[in-house]
Amino acid sequence: MGSPVGATTLVERLSAIIGLRATVARSVLEQHGQSEAYHRFLPPDVVVFPETTQEVVEIVRLCANLHMPIIPFGAGTSLEGNTAAVAGGVCIDFARMNKVLAVHTGDMDVVVQPGITRKQLNAELRGTGLFFPIDPGADASIGGMSSTRASGTMAVRYGTMKDNVMALEVVLADGRVIRTGKRARKSSAGYDLTRLFVGAEGTLGVITEITLKLHPLPQAISAAVCSFDTLQDAVDTAIAVIQSAVPVARIELVDDVMMRGINSHSKLGYREAPTLFFEFHGSEAGVAEQAEAAEAIAADHGGRGFEWAKAAEQRSRLWHARDNTLYAGLGLKPGARAMITDVCVPVSRLAECLTETRKDADASDLVAPIVGHVGDGNFHMLILIDPANSDEVARAKALHARMVARAIAMDGTCTGEHGIGLGKIGFLVDELGDAVDVMRSVKRALDPQGLMNPGKIFAEGAGI
Amino acid sequence: MGSPVGATTLVERLSAIIGLRATVARSVLEQHGQSEAYHRFLPPDVVVFPETTQEVVEIVRLCANLHMPIIPFGAGTSLEGNTAAVAGGVCIDFARMNKVLAVHTGDMDVVVQPGITRKQLNAELRGTGLFFPIDPGADASIGGMSSTRASGTMAVRYGTMKDNVMALEVVLADGRVIRTGKRARKSSAGYDLTRLFVGAEGTLGVITEITLKLHPLPQAISAAVCSFDTLQDAVDTAIAVIQSAVPVARIELVDDVMMRGINSHSKLGYREAPTLFFEFHGSEAGVAEQAEAAEAIAADHGGRGFEWAKAAEQRSRLWHARDNTLYAGLGLKPGARAMITDVCVPVSRLAECLTETRKDADASDLVAPIVGHVGDGNFHMLILIDPANSDEVARAKALHARMVARAIAMDGTCTGEHGIGLGKIGFLVDELGDAVDVMRSVKRALDPQGLMNPGKIFAEGAGI
Repeated sequence: MGSPVGATTLVERLSAIIGLRATVARSVLEQHGQSEAYHRFLPPDVVVFPETTQEVVEIVRLCANLHMPIIPFGAGTSLEGNTAAVAGGVCIDFARMNKVLAVHTGDMDVVVQPGITRKQLNAELRGTGLFFPIDPGADASIGGMSSTRASGTMAVRYGTMKDNVMALEVVLADGRVIRTGKRARKSSAGYDLTRLFVGAEGTLGVITEITLKLHPLPQAISAAVCSFDTLQDAVDTAIAVIQSAVPVARIELVDDVMMRGINSHSKLGYREAPTLFFEFHGSEAGVAEQAEAAEAIAADHGGRGFEWAKAAEQRSRLWHARDNTLYAGLGLKPGARAMITDVCVPVSRLAECLTETRKDADASDLVAPIVGHVGDGNFHMLILIDPANSDEVARAKALHARMVARAIAMDGTCTGEHGIGLGKIGFLVDELGDAVDVMRSVKRALDPQGLMNPGKIFAEGAGI
Repeated sequence: MGSPVGATTLVERLSAIIGLRATVARSVLEQHGQSEAYHRFLPPDVVVFPETTQEVVEIVRLCANLHMPIIPFGAGTSLEGNTAAVAGGVCIDFARMNKVLAVHTGDMDVVVQPGITRKQLNAELRGTGLFFPIDPGADASIGGMSSTRASGTMAVRYGTMKDNVMALEVVLADGRVIRTGKRARKSSAGYDLTRLFVGAEGTLGVITEITLKLHPLPQAISAAVCSFDTLQDAVDTAIAVIQSAVPVARIELVDDVMMRGINSHSKLGYREAPTLFFEFHGSEAGVAEQAEAAEAIAADHGGRGFEWAKAAEQRSRLWHARDNTLYAGLGLKPGARAMITDVCVPVSRLAECLTETRKDADASDLVAPIVGHVGDGNFHMLILIDPANSDEVARAKALHARMVARAIAMDGTCTGEHGIGLGKIGFLVDELGDAVDVMRSVKRALDPQGLMNPGKIFAEGAGI
């Protein structure tokens, strides 16, 4: 712990603010110190469960006085160690700040607390005719999704968190509370502080309220699946669909290795070849037209067995296969953990990047299925490792580093949607060079003590 | 001028960098010191016309050494005095940095220099099947549009500059050059510096290169016009169209006063009542379906004389009427200048905001037609004034202030798309309060000398 105050004193002072909702129970600390990924176990000193912004303000002020790190925590589904307590401190768990504060159906927006998950939010929106489309796979919290600039399968149609967060309430490092914007759909009023805090991973302030854009539920939804002989054919199909202005809602690539996992996990009989999963949103006539256009384009690129599912049950079976790729992938190597990677390249380079990465993984003798949000050029390789096998871990890390270097060399990014966290600090500098110094300047200006989620995005103790 | 160095010495030093492309010619200084709006005449000391980023770097370094303000300048079409040289200094005119550097049709993006205008860009894109949709009315430069976070008529479908700038090259206040991102369609790599510079009005650095998203040209375009008895009916129609997920490309409101101006200016015979102009982009079948859906919704709200124009010539005649509103408006009061306002409110409050503003203008005995990008809740009132009539100017300013206060009270913004510039510094504080202090902290961190477009967004000399 980076402070002279002991954990017991700290929890006493926190209890004065929020009563029994401050805890040092070992099981709670452990739960908040681990991540879904392969990062180190780094627990906080105390976990607090505030219920109001005012409680967050008092917690932040206390931490500022005691020079104690602050780590905001949502659903714990981040993948790059984004909530690890590298220097101990106080983990602010938003589990009890998970309410919908206002639904404005006329304006198609909603004001929520950060702890609500995307599935809880969509459950609350039932009956409004509106929905929140951002789907990163996990049932992440809206605060966490904002902080990592998350996206997922529907970004190709509905954008990422950057496009769907309208305004934030933020508690700053000194306890001041600001609102970054109003509820107008657009504004040119000064610096875009909303977008500054979206993706800042809690390193600039603590998000306590989020205003989100909602979208009208489509009248009709249909889905389709189609396999290809090569990754290149699948990617070329995806690009052609988007360029022909088909407003596809999802266009997901699953490679042959992952299709094998899916068949095995879900007892299915798909062809084990590069496969595209489509979803179309629109009017009844519109989704039919979109599916026909996509089928024709797929046929031009050697697509086989285009299967179109309109009924909800058919669709859900089809997407169920795609959505369970993490477990399907893990099934390929029983007992393994997944090192989940996340690069994004210009789509014109995607087939090349995928093909080289597939070859590299195979040559490295690693089981590493691939899935991709191919409309955006974003893909994930799940490198399956036995953490006890240090040689395998080393080969996996080297494969990952080559994959990121390849993406950056193709004018791409080291992370399409997972964030930097602990895992990609070095890659960020490889990607953006001096721009990282500008980020540091902003960090120093807003968090001069360096207490807000320390050790994330930037290397620890490097002059922040 | 805020520096001990004389203009002659300054121009000599600048000439050492860029030869004859530094000038103190009175006519050039005057052209760069005036704005299209009603702001003070504030010329720079020197105007320079760089041709490369390296020249910009050397100019910025010289200015930093001499403690000399730097004002980036595009097409000079901004409306809030955004390029006024409040403390003299060096105006960097990007007229000679107006090239398309790369078109990536496969990736649907383009890399441009800041001086290119949107119309020049679209001319260069002819034959690619792609276009750049952001249309603020004026033929603004892409650098200027980025700096003011511009939008315009097609934002309801294609977003604003915040959504369409993918990455920037920026020369910082100390002459360092950074790139804020790569060409991936999305990224979670650290702070969103792209969005920080978009809308910063040149106060944080000088933009020297812009990577923009492009969009596929729609297969088919159609347009429609329809009049209503009340502003409320027109706005309710617009909201219902958007909520029913019709992907309308433009939905523009023109009030009865402005329709009178349009009829007179363009010798047309439209009903002088609140009117919606629509544009639909999609497949042939899609635009027909969209227009039919909009017509049915308009009919439900008392819409009259729904007229649907599919042929290019018909469409262009229809939009010509809408696009010339500035001149049509000015025609309502010969010899007048227009004080152009720009608020944006949640769409549920738009009808109320418009109706109250219309009444307030009429009660103030001012000629003030209204147009609105109604899908976003954004509208402009053109308050027509004789600048020599101080009573009229005072009434116009008071009307404007009440309009902004009304918008902010409705959870809206003081500027939907024009920026803060000189004209809205006080309103920004009214709108965002302490958040403006956070903006100042960022400004100080990136521009400690306060030389980058001083006096914009923040009050002059207020501790920056």
